Amino acid sequence: QEFQDSLKRPLPISHSAKGFEFRDTEGKFLLQIAGRLQFRFASPDDQNPVTFDDFTNQNTKLFKINRARLKVGGHAYQPWLKYYFEYELGQSNLLDFRIMVEKWPWLNFKFGQWKVEYTRERFISSGEQQMVDRSLINRAFTLDRQQGITLYGNLDGGGLANFDYWVAVLTGAGRGATSNDDSKLMYFGRLQWNFLGRPLPFEGGDLELSQMASGIVAVAAATNTSPYTRFSQAGGGSLEGFEEGLPGQYTVNQYQLETAFNYQGFSWASEFHRKFILDNITKQNTSLGGYYLQAGYFLGQVFTFWPQPLEVAARIAQYRPNLEMPNNLETELALAFNYFFEGHKNKITVELTRFTFEDETLMRRDETRIRVQYDISF
Amino acid sequence: QEFQDSLKRPLPISHSAKGFEFRDTEGKFLLQIAGRLQFRFASPDDQNPVTFDDFTNQNTKLFKINRARLKVGGHAYQPWLKYYFEYELGQSNLLDFRIMVEKWPWLNFKFGQWKVEYTRERFISSGEQQMVDRSLINRAFTLDRQQGITLYGNLDGGGLANFDYWVAVLTGAGRGATSNDDSKLMYFGRLQWNFLGRPLPFEGGDLELSQMASGIVAVAAATNTSPYTRFSQAGGGSLEGFEEGLPGQYTVNQYQLETAFNYQGFSWASEFHRKFILDNITKQNTSLGGYYLQAGYFLGQVFTFWPQPLEVAARIAQYRPNLEMPNNLETELALAFNYFFEGHKNKITVELTRFTFEDETLMRRDETRIRVQYDISF
Amino acid sequence: QEFQDSLKRPLPISHSAKGFEFRDTEGKFLLQIAGRLQFRFASPDDQNPVTFDDFTNQNTKLFKINRARLKVGGHAYQPWLKYYFEYELGQSNLLDFRIMVEKWPWLNFKFGQWKVEYTRERFISSGEQQMVDRSLINRAFTLDRQQGITLYGNLDGGGLANFDYWVAVLTGAGRGATSNDDSKLMYFGRLQWNFLGRPLPFEGGDLELSQMASGIVAVAAATNTSPYTRFSQAGGGSLEGFEEGLPGQYTVNQYQLETAFNYQGFSWASEFHRKFILDNITKQNTSLGGYYLQAGYFLGQVFTFWPQPLEVAARIAQYRPNLEMPNNLETELALAFNYFFEGHKNKITVELTRFTFEDETLMRRDETRIRVQYDISF
Repeated sequence: QEFQDSLKRPLPISHSAKGFEFRDTEGKFLLQIAGRLQFRFASPDDQNPVTFDDFTNQNTKLFKINRARLKVGGHAYQPWLKYYFEYELGQSNLLDFRIMVEKWPWLNFKFGQWKVEYTRERFISSGEQQMVDRSLINRAFTLDRQQGITLYGNLDGGGLANFDYWVAVLTGAGRGATSNDDSKLMYFGRLQWNFLGRPLPFEGGDLELSQMASGIVAVAAATNTSPYTRFSQAGGGSLEGFEEGLPGQYTVNQYQLETAFNYQGFSWASEFHRKFILDNITKQNTSLGGYYLQAGYFLGQVFTFWPQPLEVAARIAQYRPNLEMPNNLETELALAFNYFFEGHKNKITVELTRFTFEDETLMRRDETRIRVQYDISF
Repeated sequence: QEFQDSLKRPLPISHSAKGFEFRDTEGKFLLQIAGRLQFRFASPDDQNPVTFDDFTNQNTKLFKINRARLKVGGHAYQPWLKYYFEYELGQSNLLDFRIMVEKWPWLNFKFGQWKVEYTRERFISSGEQQMVDRSLINRAFTLDRQQGITLYGNLDGGGLANFDYWVAVLTGAGRGATSNDDSKLMYFGRLQWNFLGRPLPFEGGDLELSQMASGIVAVAAATNTSPYTRFSQAGGGSLEGFEEGLPGQYTVNQYQLETAFNYQGFSWASEFHRKFILDNITKQNTSLGGYYLQAGYFLGQVFTFWPQPLEVAARIAQYRPNLEMPNNLETELALAFNYFFEGHKNKITVELTRFTFEDETLMRRDETRIRVQYDISF
Repeated sequence: QEFQDSLKRPLPISHSAKGFEFRDTEGKFLLQIAGRLQFRFASPDDQNPVTFDDFTNQNTKLFKINRARLKVGGHAYQPWLKYYFEYELGQSNLLDFRIMVEKWPWLNFKFGQWKVEYTRERFISSGEQQMVDRSLINRAFTLDRQQGITLYGNLDGGGLANFDYWVAVLTGAGRGATSNDDSKLMYFGRLQWNFLGRPLPFEGGDLELSQMASGIVAVAAATNTSPYTRFSQAGGGSLEGFEEGLPGQYTVNQYQLETAFNYQGFSWASEFHRKFILDNITKQNTSLGGYYLQAGYFLGQVFTFWPQPLEVAARIAQYRPNLEMPNNLETELALAFNYFFEGHKNKITVELTRFTFEDETLMRRDETRIRVQYDISF
C-alpha cells in the first residue's frame, strides 16, 4: 500500500512550465527554479520614440540581452502558502517578491511587490507577449510594479456569471521604493467579466488553438498621490513635461476599459485609457488618452502551406499626451511573426513597426524599426 | 546489505531549517538553498531616529519588503569543509561569503566576510530577532560585517567549565570593501562562559520552552584604525559629529559585557557598551556608552487562555553619544508580540516603541512608532 | 527491461565539475548550479601598477573576496540547445549569458554575452589560471566580454590536420552595454592549429600529467570602432593617455600570435600582441605591443621529496604602451606555487611578482608584491 502511495506521489524532481521543481517527501515544501533569457536585435533603435528628437538619433545596429531573469517560486509549510520572487540579473533589480495565501478561489490575499493587474498588456509577462514588447501607450498608463496588499479572486455564479476581481492598497511609490513620500496611498480596483463563462489566461496569442471561445471585458481604475507621473521597472518617474515632484505633488486618477478574446488560434485584445494629472502645487490639470487594438492568428489553421507554429499578429496604438491640445498624436503600427518552437518558452519573433508623431507646432516625424527577438525559458 | 545502507543514507533531496538540501550519492557534497522574505509596515517612520530633526519628519505610512535574502550553504569535498553565502536581493548586496574548516569542536577556522560575533544582538539573524529589529544602540556599537579570518571553538572542561571563544584578524574596512585604507587591521576577541554547562543558541526567545536552563556571560573587545566610526550593511560609515576620515584617521577601541539566559519559555538578554574614538589628526577623544535589557515570555506557560505560540517581549535601550556631555540621552522603550506559526521561520510581530531624546541645549523630543512585520523562510 | 533502463539513466541529482546537476526523467532538461569563491591576500597592493604613480601608493595589507560567482548552465528542450549564465555576486554584475546550439562538432553557433576567445589567457576562467591572476599585458589587449554572435567548431582532417576556428560579429560596446554607439560593429576571428592532432583544454597547467603531448599555435585578430580603447569586466574603458571618446571615435585593429603546450606535468603558454589605435577625430595613430611567456611544472614528477599536487610556475610579461617612444617598457616577473587539493576546484596559490617600469623621462620604478589566494568551486 505504501509502495502504491509512493507511486502516486509527485517525483522529488521534475520539470514543468515553471522550471525545475523540487519537493520534500511530505508535500509541505515545493521549490521551483526557472531562468529566462531574452536576446534582441534592433535597428535603428530599440526604444520606442518618446520625443520628436528621438527620430533624429544616430542610427545603430543593436544586439543585446534584453532580459535575464531568475524566477523562484513554490510553497512552504502549507500548499496554499505560496511565495514567488523574480530577479533581473542584467540590471540587478529585484522585481517581484510576494507571499500569496490562496486557500479559496473566491478570496485570495497577496502582499509584497508585483505588477499591478491594472492592464492586461502590462500584466502579461514580457516572455509571453504577442509582439516583441508592449505598445507605445504602456509607458504613459501602466502602474507597473508597486508594493502593498491585494485581495483577489474568482466569483463563479454559473454560466456566464463569471467574474474576477482585484482590490489593492499600495504605497504608490513604485518598484524598489524603501520609503513612502507621505501618508497618502495608492488605491486600485479591477473588475473583469469572463463573459463566456470561462477564464482567459494572461498570455499573448491563442497558442492552444482553443476549441471553446473565451473572452473578457474589464474595467480598472486607480488613484495615487505621489511625486511621480509614471512608473516603470526603474520605479517612479516622470512623463514628458513633468519633473519629479515634491512629496504628494501629483494626484493621478486614471481608468481603462479592456477587452480580450481567444478562439481557434485567433486572439484579440484592446485597451482604452484616460489619465488625469493634477499638480497640487500649480493646480494645473493635464488629461492624457490612448488606446491599442491588437489581433493575431495562426494562419496554418486555414492555409495548409503555412507552418503550424507560425503566428502573424498586428497592432495599432495611438497616444495623445495632452487631450486639450489639438493634433498632438503619436501612432504605432506593428506587424509581427512569431515562430513558437516550444510555445512561449522557446520562440523567435520578427517585428516591423512604423512610428508617426504629429503635433500642431512641429514637423511630422516617422520612422520604421525592425526588431528580432529570441526568448527562452528553462 | 547495500539496500540496507541505502535506507540509512540521507535522501538526495530533503528540506530542513536551512531550506532545500541536495546531496550527491557519495556524501562528499551538500548544497542548501533557502530564501527569506521580510515584509514590514511602519508608521510614522521605519528607521530609528538618529538626530533631533528626525522627530519632525513628515509622517508616513510605509509598507515595504525589508529583507529579501538568498542563502546558499553546504559542504564540498569533505564534510568539514563548509561554505556559505548570503545575498540581499533587494539591495543587490553580497552579505556573507565564507569558508569554514570545522574538523574539531575546540578549533575551527573561518575566512571570508561575515557578521563579527562581537554582540549577540547583531550576530542573531534578522530573521530570529525577538523584536521587529535590533535596538537603538546597535547602530553605534556593532562591528557589523568584516572581511578576514577567525579562530573559534568550544572548550568543554566538563560541568560548568564550558567556554566559547573567537579571535579574529579583519581588515576593518566593512562589508564589501575591496581595498584596505592602510596596513593597520582590526583585531577582535570574545570569550563566552556558558555558566550552566550547556550552549545557548544564537536566536531570540526560548521557543523550545527549554526544560534545562542555559545561560551565558560574555566579554568582547575590538580595536580598529580606519576612516570609519561606525559600520552597517552599507559598509563603513560615520557617526553623527564625525565625517568619513582619511586613511587611518580614527582609532576606535571598544568593549562590551553581555548576558543571556533561557528557561521554560522565558528569555533574557543584555549588553553594556563602551566605545572610545580617537581622531589621530585632531587628537580629540570621544567616549560613547549604552546598554539594553530585554526579556520575553510565552505567557501560555502560565495562563491557559493565552495562545501557546504567542510570546510577549519588552526592551529598554539607552544610548549616550558623548559620555563627557551631561544629560545627552536617547531612550527606546519597546513592547512586542510574536506569533510563531512555524517558529522563527514563519512568524508575525507587532511592536510598539517609544523614543525619547534628551539634550541640555535642545528641547526634549519623543515619538511613538508602530511596526508590523511578517517574516518567512523557505 | 524498464528497470534495466532506469539503471543506465543518469541520476536525477548528481555532482560534477560543473556543480550539482539536476535532470528531468525524459532527459530533455539539465540544470547545473555551481558556486565559486576566491579569497585573496595581497601586500602592498593587489592591482598591477598602471602608472608610475602607482608605485608610491600607501602600502596596505589587503584581504578580500576577489570573486564570488554563481554559475547556472544546462540544456533545455534538446540536448544540443544549451544555456549558461554567470553572475558576479560581489559586484552584482551579470557576466556571461549565452545560448549555444551545438549539434555538430564542426559547426556551432552561440549568441549572447561571453568572453571573446581572442586570447587563451583571458578565455581561461579566473578559477583555472596558473598564477594568481592574468598577466600585466591582459589589461591593454583583451577584448574581454562582448555581446553578439559567433560561429565556431573543430575541423578534424585526421592526423595533424586538426583545427579550431571562431568567427564573430559583436557590438563592440563591452560587457553590460544596452546600446551601441553607432552602426559599426566589432569583427573577430581566431584560427587555432592543434598541431599534435588533439585538443588542449582551456585551463592553466597540466594537472592531468598528460601521457600524450598536446600543443597549439593560434592567430587571432579583431577590428572595432567605438568610444573605447580597452575593455574589462566593467565594460568599455580607456587606456592611459586616452579618454572615453565620442561614438565611433576610435578605430582599433589588433592581432596576436599564441602558443601553448602540455606534456607530463609540464605546461607552456605564450602570446605576442600588436594593437593599433586610430583616433578618427585627431587622426593620431598609436601602436602598442607586448608579450608574455609562461611555464609550469609538477616537480614531483622528477623529485620524490616534492609533493605531487604542488606545481611551480613562472612568467615574464613585457608591455610597451607606445612603440614609437623609445625605452618605455613595463615588465612583470612572477613566480607561483600552486597546491591543488582537488585540481583547480580547490587550490591555494602563493605568488611573488616583481614589477619594473621604465621610461626615458621618468625615474625607473620597481616593486615586489606577494599574493596568497584560495579558490574553491562547489
